[in-house]
Amino acid sequence: MEKVTLADAFESIEEYWDPHIAGELNGQAVKLARVDGEFVWHRHDDADELFLVSRGELRIEFREREDVTLDEGELLVVPRGIEHRPIAEEETRILLFEPAETYNTGNVENERTRTDPERIE
Amino acid sequence: MEKVTLADAFESIEEYWDPHIAGELNGQAVKLARVDGEFVWHRHDDADELFLVSRGELRIEFREREDVTLDEGELLVVPRGIEHRPIAEEETRILLFEPAETYNTGNVENERTRTDPERIE
Repeated sequence: MEKVTLADAFESIEEYWDPHIAGELNGQAVKLARVDGEFVWHRHDDADELFLVSRGELRIEFREREDVTLDEGELLVVPRGIEHRPIAEEETRILLFEPAETYNTGNVENERTRTDPERIE
Repeated sequence: MEKVTLADAFESIEEYWDPHIAGELNGQAVKLARVDGEFVWHRHDDADELFLVSRGELRIEFREREDVTLDEGELLVVPRGIEHRPIAEEETRILLFEPAETYNTGNVENERTRTDPERIE
């Protein structure tokens, strides 16, 4: 049972769009990611996903509804099955809360897919 | 699918130790609470609980291990079954991640028990 200091944890992440596990509970995980630029369109068929911006600004695009832009201290739950694309215009730090086994690229598999995220030490 | 701005959401909470639901996902809830002073000793037999401090400082006491003090931007997962007591020396704002049905006072029922938390609008 060790606390995690978000600032230090984010600093330890070297690559963009590479989620790291900061904690696990009840089959869910809190993941941290540094992001910049556009991610891929994807959806999670069996997982709702929470985004919380710790620093910066994250825009989330949807196919059939308006974008949502999250500033620092704002959160959004994207329900399962909803296709979405996160975009950051500059380096942004986000927390994700989702089932531990959720893949970052959901139904899509490409060079950005991380099937076995690292754990924050 | 509406975003939640934490600063506004915390402002809308009037009482201390009265968790409000900011979002639900995968059977879990993100709850926000303004806290000040000592809470009750309790445990959650079937739920791991994550604490994340948004502002202020939260000390969590345990029966058989050292206290953990969380400053702003620090998080801790308290595993199920572990008795704990949160304490804030001044007003502190915390996020909790836990199963949606988790009671704030766990195995204890008293005047601080909230069985049906309000939802942030």
